Amino acid sequence: MPLPSVLLLNGPNLNLLGTREPEIYGSETLKDLNNLCIRRAKALGLSLVCQQSNWEGQLIDWIHEARGIHEGIIINPGALTHTSIGLLDALKGVDLPVIEVHISNIHRRESFRHQSYVSQAALGVICGLGRQGYLLAMDAMANVLNNEQEA
Amino acid sequence: MPLPSVLLLNGPNLNLLGTREPEIYGSETLKDLNNLCIRRAKALGLSLVCQQSNWEGQLIDWIHEARGIHEGIIINPGALTHTSIGLLDALKGVDLPVIEVHISNIHRRESFRHQSYVSQAALGVICGLGRQGYLLAMDAMANVLNNEQEA
Amino acid sequence: MPLPSVLLLNGPNLNLLGTREPEIYGSETLKDLNNLCIRRAKALGLSLVCQQSNWEGQLIDWIHEARGIHEGIIINPGALTHTSIGLLDALKGVDLPVIEVHISNIHRRESFRHQSYVSQAALGVICGLGRQGYLLAMDAMANVLNNEQEA
Amino acid sequence: MPLPSVLLLNGPNLNLLGTREPEIYGSETLKDLNNLCIRRAKALGLSLVCQQSNWEGQLIDWIHEARGIHEGIIINPGALTHTSIGLLDALKGVDLPVIEVHISNIHRRESFRHQSYVSQAALGVICGLGRQGYLLAMDAMANVLNNEQEA
Amino acid sequence: MPLPSVLLLNGPNLNLLGTREPEIYGSETLKDLNNLCIRRAKALGLSLVCQQSNWEGQLIDWIHEARGIHEGIIINPGALTHTSIGLLDALKGVDLPVIEVHISNIHRRESFRHQSYVSQAALGVICGLGRQGYLLAMDAMANVLNNEQEA
Amino acid sequence: MPLPSVLLLNGPNLNLLGTREPEIYGSETLKDLNNLCIRRAKALGLSLVCQQSNWEGQLIDWIHEARGIHEGIIINPGALTHTSIGLLDALKGVDLPVIEVHISNIHRRESFRHQSYVSQAALGVICGLGRQGYLLAMDAMANVLNNEQEA
Amino acid sequence: MPLPSVLLLNGPNLNLLGTREPEIYGSETLKDLNNLCIRRAKALGLSLVCQQSNWEGQLIDWIHEARGIHEGIIINPGALTHTSIGLLDALKGVDLPVIEVHISNIHRRESFRHQSYVSQAALGVICGLGRQGYLLAMDAMANVLNNEQEA
Amino acid sequence: MPLPSVLLLNGPNLNLLGTREPEIYGSETLKDLNNLCIRRAKALGLSLVCQQSNWEGQLIDWIHEARGIHEGIIINPGALTHTSIGLLDALKGVDLPVIEVHISNIHRRESFRHQSYVSQAALGVICGLGRQGYLLAMDAMANVLNNEQEA
Amino acid sequence: MPLPSVLLLNGPNLNLLGTREPEIYGSETLKDLNNLCIRRAKALGLSLVCQQSNWEGQLIDWIHEARGIHEGIIINPGALTHTSIGLLDALKGVDLPVIEVHISNIHRRESFRHQSYVSQAALGVICGLGRQGYLLAMDAMANVLNNEQEA
Amino acid sequence: MPLPSVLLLNGPNLNLLGTREPEIYGSETLKDLNNLCIRRAKALGLSLVCQQSNWEGQLIDWIHEARGIHEGIIINPGALTHTSIGLLDALKGVDLPVIEVHISNIHRRESFRHQSYVSQAALGVICGLGRQGYLLAMDAMANVLNNEQEA
Amino acid sequence: MPLPSVLLLNGPNLNLLGTREPEIYGSETLKDLNNLCIRRAKALGLSLVCQQSNWEGQLIDWIHEARGIHEGIIINPGALTHTSIGLLDALKGVDLPVIEVHISNIHRRESFRHQSYVSQAALGVICGLGRQGYLLAMDAMANVLNNEQEA
Amino acid sequence: MPLPSVLLLNGPNLNLLGTREPEIYGSETLKDLNNLCIRRAKALGLSLVCQQSNWEGQLIDWIHEARGIHEGIIINPGALTHTSIGLLDALKGVDLPVIEVHISNIHRRESFRHQSYVSQAALGVICGLGRQGYLLAMDAMANVLNNEQEA
Repeated sequence: MPLPSVLLLNGPNLNLLGTREPEIYGSETLKDLNNLCIRRAKALGLSLVCQQSNWEGQLIDWIHEARGIHEGIIINPGALTHTSIGLLDALKGVDLPVIEVHISNIHRRESFRHQSYVSQAALGVICGLGRQGYLLAMDAMANVLNNEQEA
Repeated sequence: MPLPSVLLLNGPNLNLLGTREPEIYGSETLKDLNNLCIRRAKALGLSLVCQQSNWEGQLIDWIHEARGIHEGIIINPGALTHTSIGLLDALKGVDLPVIEVHISNIHRRESFRHQSYVSQAALGVICGLGRQGYLLAMDAMANVLNNEQEA
Repeated sequence: MPLPSVLLLNGPNLNLLGTREPEIYGSETLKDLNNLCIRRAKALGLSLVCQQSNWEGQLIDWIHEARGIHEGIIINPGALTHTSIGLLDALKGVDLPVIEVHISNIHRRESFRHQSYVSQAALGVICGLGRQGYLLAMDAMANVLNNEQEA
Repeated sequence: MPLPSVLLLNGPNLNLLGTREPEIYGSETLKDLNNLCIRRAKALGLSLVCQQSNWEGQLIDWIHEARGIHEGIIINPGALTHTSIGLLDALKGVDLPVIEVHISNIHRRESFRHQSYVSQAALGVICGLGRQGYLLAMDAMANVLNNEQEA
Repeated sequence: MPLPSVLLLNGPNLNLLGTREPEIYGSETLKDLNNLCIRRAKALGLSLVCQQSNWEGQLIDWIHEARGIHEGIIINPGALTHTSIGLLDALKGVDLPVIEVHISNIHRRESFRHQSYVSQAALGVICGLGRQGYLLAMDAMANVLNNEQEA
Repeated sequence: MPLPSVLLLNGPNLNLLGTREPEIYGSETLKDLNNLCIRRAKALGLSLVCQQSNWEGQLIDWIHEARGIHEGIIINPGALTHTSIGLLDALKGVDLPVIEVHISNIHRRESFRHQSYVSQAALGVICGLGRQGYLLAMDAMANVLNNEQEA
Repeated sequence: MPLPSVLLLNGPNLNLLGTREPEIYGSETLKDLNNLCIRRAKALGLSLVCQQSNWEGQLIDWIHEARGIHEGIIINPGALTHTSIGLLDALKGVDLPVIEVHISNIHRRESFRHQSYVSQAALGVICGLGRQGYLLAMDAMANVLNNEQEA
Repeated sequence: MPLPSVLLLNGPNLNLLGTREPEIYGSETLKDLNNLCIRRAKALGLSLVCQQSNWEGQLIDWIHEARGIHEGIIINPGALTHTSIGLLDALKGVDLPVIEVHISNIHRRESFRHQSYVSQAALGVICGLGRQGYLLAMDAMANVLNNEQEA
Repeated sequence: MPLPSVLLLNGPNLNLLGTREPEIYGSETLKDLNNLCIRRAKALGLSLVCQQSNWEGQLIDWIHEARGIHEGIIINPGALTHTSIGLLDALKGVDLPVIEVHISNIHRRESFRHQSYVSQAALGVICGLGRQGYLLAMDAMANVLNNEQEA
Repeated sequence: MPLPSVLLLNGPNLNLLGTREPEIYGSETLKDLNNLCIRRAKALGLSLVCQQSNWEGQLIDWIHEARGIHEGIIINPGALTHTSIGLLDALKGVDLPVIEVHISNIHRRESFRHQSYVSQAALGVICGLGRQGYLLAMDAMANVLNNEQEA
Repeated sequence: MPLPSVLLLNGPNLNLLGTREPEIYGSETLKDLNNLCIRRAKALGLSLVCQQSNWEGQLIDWIHEARGIHEGIIINPGALTHTSIGLLDALKGVDLPVIEVHISNIHRRESFRHQSYVSQAALGVICGLGRQGYLLAMDAMANVLNNEQEA
Repeated sequence: MPLPSVLLLNGPNLNLLGTREPEIYGSETLKDLNNLCIRRAKALGLSLVCQQSNWEGQLIDWIHEARGIHEGIIINPGALTHTSIGLLDALKGVDLPVIEVHISNIHRRESFRHQSYVSQAALGVICGLGRQGYLLAMDAMANVLNNEQEA
C-alpha cells in the first residue's frame, strides 16, 4: 500500500523565506523548510509534495488536482489568507482535511491580518511557531489520517 | 452577416461544477452546462464562446480581447465577484453589455457573498436559479443585442 | 387538470410604471406589463393573477391567501424590498417557490437599495433587466413548477 | 364597576399561527390562542379584546382608539417589532401600560430580530416562552392594573 | 384661473396632536392646525387640502393622486420619515415641489430620528419650529409656486 | 418521588436589592425576593434553591453542580448578562432548561445593556416586570418541567 | 422701548455668495442678502445686525458678545456646522434662542454634511429653501420673541 | 539540574470536558487530557503542572505565581479568551513564553469567538486540532525552551 | 470624631507593580505605593484602607462593604476598567464619591484601553501621572469630603 | 535662577466660566480661576502665565512661542479637545511636558466628548474634578519639573 | 505679459519645519523651503507667493483673495487636511487648479491622517516625498497652466 | 559604471490606456507612456524597464526578481492597489525604494478606491496628475537614488 500523500502549499512571497524580513520570518530558505518537512514526512510514514506559487490561480489549480492524489493539504496561504474567497471555495470543493499554518502570530500584526477566509475551510490553524509550526501541522495531519484509516 | 457573438466566462472553482458541494451547485458538469448554453445560443441566433479560469489575470485578459470579437459578455465571476476590482475595471473598460449570473442565491449565503463589485459594471444580475440562470441570461442578452441592432 | 397558477405581485409605486422616472423604469405602464406577462403565462401553460398595492398589509394578505390557490409567487416588492421583515415572514410562512424581480439593477443605485430582506425567502433574484426580467422570472417559475410536478 | 379591559394586539403574520413554521411557532391557531387568553382574562377578573392585523396603520389606529376604552395593551408586534417607529410613537402617545410578547426567543434568531423599537415604550418584555408567554403577560398586566388601582 | 392647490399631508400619530406628549408637540389639535393652515393658504392665494393617515399605503396613494390636482406637497411624514423608502419613491415619482416639516427638532431627539429618507426628495426641510413650521412651509411653497409661474 | 428542583441564581450586585437605585430596582431585599419565590415554588410543587454571588467563577461552578441535582435554572445574571461568555458556555454545557430574568427593562437603559450573551442559552427571557418577573419565570419553568414529564 | 435685536451670523465661505457654485447657492451677494434681511427685520419690528467671518474664533467671540445686546441669533454656520463643537458650546453658553439656516438642502449633499453639531443648540432648523430660508428664520424668530414677551 | 517546568492552565468550563457538547469537544475528560499531557511532558523531559479554574482571578493569581517556578505557560483560556484584558496583562506581566490552545477552530464558530485578547501575549496559537493541540503545544514549548537554553 | 475614611482599591495585576513592564509602570512596589498613600492620608486628616485583588468578585464585595465604613473610594480598576459593568453597577450602588486613577495615560495605549465603564460612576478621572496620580486623587478626595462636611 | 515657568492655556468658551451652564462648570470666573492658579504657582515655586482664546490659531501660536520661554504647558482645550489635530501637532512639535485638564468628567457627557486628540500628546489627563483639577495639574507639573531638574 | 502667478499655502505647524519632529519632516526651515520653491518658480517661468498660517480663517481668506490674482494654488493644509470642510469649500469656491502636498506619507501614519477633505477639491495629490514634493507640485502646476494657455 | 536601473510596473487594465474611459485616463496608449518615461529616464541618467500585467502573480514575481537588478520601483498597481496584500508583502520583501502612482485622483472616486495597501510599502504617492505623474515619480526616484549614492 502506498504511503498516504500530503500536499504542502505555500502562497505568495513565501519563496522569499530566509531573505525577507528575517526578524519576522527567520533566515532559512523555503527549500530548507521543504527538506525539513520531507524528512519529517518520512518519519511519519507520509509522502509529501511541496509547491509554492505567488499566483492565486495556480494554487487553486493545485488544490483541485489534489483530489484523488493527496489525502490531506497543509497550506500557508500567505497574503491570500485574508482576501481570497477563491482559495476558501477551492478547499471546500475538494473533500480533504486542511491544516492552515502561519509562521508569524498573525493576531499580533496589522489588523487586516487578523481575519482569515481560509480558516473557514480548515480543520485547525497553527500560527506564530515559526518553521516548527509546519512540523506540528504534519504531526497533526498524520494523526488525522491515522484516525481516518482506523475509523 | 455573421451571428452576433457572446462570450461566456466562468471564474474560479466553476470547473468543479458537478463535483463540488452538489447540494448547492447541482451535479451536471461545466461541460454539460456549456453545451446546454451553446444549444440555446443556436436557438437564439447567437454564436457562443465558453471559457473558464481560476486565474483572475486570465479572465481580465479574455475580457480585454473580447472587444471587436464579441458583442456581449455573460459572466459568473465565482469568488472574484466579491473581491475583484480588477474585473470591474476590465468590464467597464470594454464597452459591451454584461450580464452577471450566479448559480446559488448569494444573498442567502455568508454575508461576505452579499456584495458584488462586478454588479457595478453589469446591466443585470440573475442569481439562485441554478443552471437555468445561464439560459435566462442568454435570453436576456439576445434581447439586448436585438434592441441594439434595431435602435 | 387546471393550469398551474402563479401570483404576480407588484409593490409600492409600481403602479406609476410608465409615468415615473422613465430613464430608470421605461415608459410602458403596469397594465402593459401585466398583459405581457399574461401572454407569456399562456405560452408557458400557466395561469397568472396580477396584483399591485402600495400597502404592505395588502401584500401580506395576498401572500397569505395564495396558499391553496397559487403554486408560485413572483414579486417585485419595490421599496419594501429593503425594509419589510413582514413580507419576508409572510413569504416564508406560505410554502411556495418565490422569485424576486427588480426592473433596475438595485446594486448600482443608492446603498440603501443594495440589501434585500425578501431575498432571504426567494429561490432566485433577477434585477436590472427591465420588463424582460418579469418574463424571465416567469420562464424560471414554469421551470420550477415543471420540475416539482415531475419529481 | 366594569372589569378592567385589556387590548391584545397581534401584528403581521400572526394570523398564520398553527400553520406557519410550526417548529418555531407551534401548531395551535391564533383563535385557539385568543380563546386561551380570554379564559385566563376571566380568571384574572379582566375583560379582553383580541385583534390581529397585517397592516401597521390598522394597529396604530387600534392603539389610538384604546384610550378611554382599555386600561392596558399586550402586543406581539411580529415583524414590525424591529422596524416600526410608528408603533413606538403610537404606544407612547396613549398613556397606558404596555407589555410586549414574542413567541420565539428573538435573541437566538437572525441579528435583525435582536433590536426592538417597541421595547422603548414597553413596561416589560417576555419572549421565547411560546403561547405561555401571552398568559404570563396577562398575569403581569393584571398585577400592574391591581397595583394602580390600589395606589 | 383657479388658485394653485397644495396638498398638506400628515403621517402616523399626528392625529394625536394636542393629546400626545404635549411637552414635545404642544396642545392644539390637528384640526386646529389644519384650520390655521387653511387661513394662511387663503392669505397666500392658495387652495389647501389637508389629509392625515397612520397608513403608509394611504399616504403613497394620496401622493400619486396629487399629480394633475395639486401643484405642491407639504408633508410631515411622522415616524415614516426615518424608515419609508416607499414615501421617498412616491414623492420622487410625482413631479411636484415638496417641503418636509417636523414639529420638533428631530436632530435633538433619539439618534434613529436624525436620518430622513424623505429629505432626499424634498426641496427644503423645516424642523423644530412647532406649528409655525407649517406656516413657514406654506410661505415657502407659495414663493416656489410664484417663481415657477413667473419663470 | 421528590419534587422537581429548580436553581435560582442572582448575579453581581443583586445582593444590594432594596438598597441600591430603588427607583430602578424597588425597595424589597433579595431575601424578601427569595422568600417570595420559595412560597411560589411550593404552590407550584417545586423545590427551589436560591444563590447569589458577585463572582462569575462562583456562578459558573454552581451551574456545573446543578447537573443531576436541579431540573431547571432561573438566572438573573446582572451585569454579567452583557459580558460573560463563560456563563453562556456553562449554561450550554449543562443540559437544563434556562429562563433569564431582569428586573428592569434592559432595552430602555444604556445601549451596552441591550445585548445579552446569556440569551443565547436561554429558553425564554423576561424583563422589566420587576420582582413579578421572577414569579412569572417560575410559572414558566413549572410549565416547562410539566411538559417534559408528560412527554 | 428699543426694538428687539437679532444677530445674523454667516460662517465660512458665505462671503462668496453670488460668486461661488451659483448652481447651488444662487447669484445674489451676501450684501444683497443682508439688505433683504434688514428690510424684513424692519417689517417685523426687529433690529438686525449682520456679521460674517471665515474664522471660527471670531464667530464664537460674536456669540459671546451677543449676551445683553441681542435677543436671538440666526446662524448659517457653513462648513463649521458639521465640525465645530466650539460653536455648539458657545451657543449653549449664551442663553438665547437660536435658529439654524442652510441655503442648500444639506441632506441631499455629501454624507459628511448630513450631521450638525449646531442643531444640538438650535430651536429649529431650516434648510434647502435658499435665501428665503433666512426670511423664514426671521419670521420664526419674531414669533419666538413675541411669545416670550407675552409669556 | 531539575527538569524545566511548564504550567498548563485551563479556563472556564474546561472542567466539563468529556461531558459538554461532545460533538465540539470530544468525550475524554480533563483528567484524561491532563494525564496525556503529563506523559508527553515526561517524554519531552519536562515537568508539568496542570490547573483549571472557572475563576478569572484564580487564573491571574496562578500566572503571577508562575514566575520563578515555571519556564513556560500553555493556556486554553476558554471563554475568557475573548473578553479578559486581565489575563492578557497578567501574561505580559510575567516574562515567560506563552502558547495558546483551543480545542475547536474558534474561527468557524460565532463571530464573538474570533477575536482573542490572549493572542496579544502569546508566542503562538494552535486551534481546531482537538486534544492533540495540547500535545503539539507541549512539543512547541519544549522546542522553545531548548532553544532558549542553547542560546 | 473619627477621621473620614477612604478605601483605596487596586484591581487585577496591580500587585505586580514594580516588577511588571517597569517602562510603563515604574519600579516601586504596591506596598511602597500604599505606604506613600497612607502617609499622605495622615497629612490630609484621612484614614486610609488599601486593598488589591485580581478577582472582580472580591472588588465588588469590598465596594458593597464600604457603605457605612468609608466616605469615599479611590479605585484603579486595572484591566477591569474597560470590561466590567459589574464594577460600574457596584460603584453606582453604593452612594459614595469615587475617583478613578490610572498610572499610565490609557488614551495613548491600545484602543481597547480608551473606553472606561468605571468612568460612568466616577466623579473624576486622573491618568498618566504615575504614582503621583494616587496622591492627587487623595488630595481631590479630601477636598470633596471637606466640601461635603461644610455643605 | 529664575523660577520655572508654566503656560496655562484655556480654549474656546472657557472665558464664559462662571456664567455658562453653571450646573456643569460652577460659578467662579476664569479670572478667579487664573488667580487661584497663580497663588498655587507661587506656593510651588513656579511662574505662571495664563492665556485664553476662542481661536485655534491663537492657541497654536502660543504653544509655538512657549519653546524657550516655558518649561511646561497645562491646557484645557475645551471643544478643540475632540476635533483639533492642529493642537495635537503643535503640542508634539514643542518638546515640553503637557498636562490636559477638563473641568467636567467628559466621559459622562455626549459620546463625541469621549475622544481626545490632545491626549495623544499629553503626559497625563485630569477630568471631572472642577477647578481643583487645575490645581492638581499644577502640583503634577511641579513634580514633573522637579524630577527633570534632579535627573 | 506678466508671469503666471501661483499661491503656495502652508497650514498649521508648518512654520515649525526644521525644528519639529525632524525624523518625520527633515531639518530645513520653512524659509529655506520657500526660497527653494521661488527659485524653481523662476526656472519654470512662474511667479510665486508663499504664505503660512496656523489659523484656518486666515487660510480661507487667502484662498478667497487668490481669485483674480493667482492662477493656481499649491497647498499643504497640515492638520486641517483631515478636519476642515471650510478649506474644501473655499478651494471649490475659487475656480483655480489646486495641488495638495504632504511632506510625509500620510497613509503610513495614524489612521486619522488617512482621510483628506482637501483632496475632494484637488487636481492631484503628492505625499511622502519630502521637500521635493513641493518642487514636483510646482512642476505639475506649470504643466497644468501651460496646457490651459494652449487650450 | 552602469546607469542605475528602475523598474516601472503597471497593473491590471493599464494596458487599456488610451482606449478605456478616456475622460478619466486620457487617450495616449501605454506604449506612448512607456516611451515618454524612457526618454525621461535617459535625461535623468537612469535605465528604465517597463512591464505591465493583469496578473497579480506576475507582478509579484517581477518584484521579487527586481532584487539585484533594479535600484527602485515605480508602480501603478491599478485595481490591486486596494485589495492586494500580496503586492504589499512583495514590495516590503525586496529592500528597494518604491513610489506609487495613480493617473486619476483616487480620493475623488468611489470610496473603495480611497484605501491603498501598497501605500504601506511606498516612500511616496502621486495621484491625479495624469501621465505627468509618472514623470514626476521618475524625477523623485532619481532624486532618491542620488541621495543614496551620496550618503
